[in-house]
Amino acid sequence: MPRVKLYTYFRSTAAWRVRIALNLKAVDCELVPVHLLRDGGEHRRSEYLVRNPQGLVPTLEDGDLVVGQSLAIIEYLNEKFPEPPLLPRDPAERARVRALSALIACDVHPLNNLRILQYLRGELHCDEDAVNAWYRHWVALGLEGFEKSVSRTSNGRYSIGEAVSMADLFLIPQLFNARRFNCDLGPYPTLLRIDEHLRSWPAFADAAPERQADAV
Amino acid sequence: MPRVKLYTYFRSTAAWRVRIALNLKAVDCELVPVHLLRDGGEHRRSEYLVRNPQGLVPTLEDGDLVVGQSLAIIEYLNEKFPEPPLLPRDPAERARVRALSALIACDVHPLNNLRILQYLRGELHCDEDAVNAWYRHWVALGLEGFEKSVSRTSNGRYSIGEAVSMADLFLIPQLFNARRFNCDLGPYPTLLRIDEHLRSWPAFADAAPERQADAV
Repeated sequence: MPRVKLYTYFRSTAAWRVRIALNLKAVDCELVPVHLLRDGGEHRRSEYLVRNPQGLVPTLEDGDLVVGQSLAIIEYLNEKFPEPPLLPRDPAERARVRALSALIACDVHPLNNLRILQYLRGELHCDEDAVNAWYRHWVALGLEGFEKSVSRTSNGRYSIGEAVSMADLFLIPQLFNARRFNCDLGPYPTLLRIDEHLRSWPAFADAAPERQADAV
Repeated sequence: MPRVKLYTYFRSTAAWRVRIALNLKAVDCELVPVHLLRDGGEHRRSEYLVRNPQGLVPTLEDGDLVVGQSLAIIEYLNEKFPEPPLLPRDPAERARVRALSALIACDVHPLNNLRILQYLRGELHCDEDAVNAWYRHWVALGLEGFEKSVSRTSNGRYSIGEAVSMADLFLIPQLFNARRFNCDLGPYPTLLRIDEHLRSWPAFADAAPERQADAV
């Protein structure tokens, strides 16, 4: 049986989420680096576009399946490698976990990833102050929504319930990136407690950008 | 048992996807309009923010569950009302359906929704040409990725496989909006065939913006 392969970029939070899932589930996986900046971007090469027509990382290969999008990949891994589960058993709690995951996956990260910042600087001639203001604006709105959604129910160790879930996989890398852009995280005390608890777990720490073989 | 409630805005493609799911599954649902423009936006009122701290539509209420994010809502509806299934049985096909749904939900729609266009016009002082170019740029990239992902396998009636799936619920409203912004859909012949097949289905047509009670 061929090993699972993940096409990844060390700094991509979308790839990082998947790396955490692979670590938590102890999946034997080959990480294949795709450098988004080197030589104009290895994600733009035809051999990568065949696998991921959007030209985005990550991409998972498992036998005949070749699929992108971190949300879809993590759901797939959670079905194929059920332990530990990344979704609660209760349907309403599952919905809350998926909604928080989508909050980051849809409403924060895609607004702030490399291709968007490049468009702001290039086509829209934004200076770095405007780019940083853009970045922080959408991070603040997203994290505020996340904080309000979990502040009354979180135990301060996980976003939802008594165990790590998909929502945590989306949250922790996003907080790391928010710090990179000097976002003020003071208004999100619950998220900071969850981060403090989880980021030192080996599954999270080993998946962090600076621990990747392709880190520069 | 209380009926399911959906907080919706007629023109929101995110709400539209959920309306299609509710129609396909014949769920008895009360639609509660939230007007995003009237009086500065009804989604900004405290009584709505209690339900949806992000201040976005849609929100689903089902008993004690109050949850946003169309991806999470549709997964929940699909678990609670299994027929007809919106995900294939085969895990690899499920992953492909979820990836296409996320392609629209993460990489097209959030870049082009009302709050982003307002930020471009306001904070970034973009004129309408720049706003339209932004809109069309991300639609084109997303639909190109969708087309390439399905062109060799789609039967021209559905995105994936032999039945309607979640991916179709995300595709059809996005194509409608692309037309509103005069995007050239010529490069996506497979998507146009799927659209031609599905948009006249009552579940899709009855969920369209112009058929909503809050349409203006």
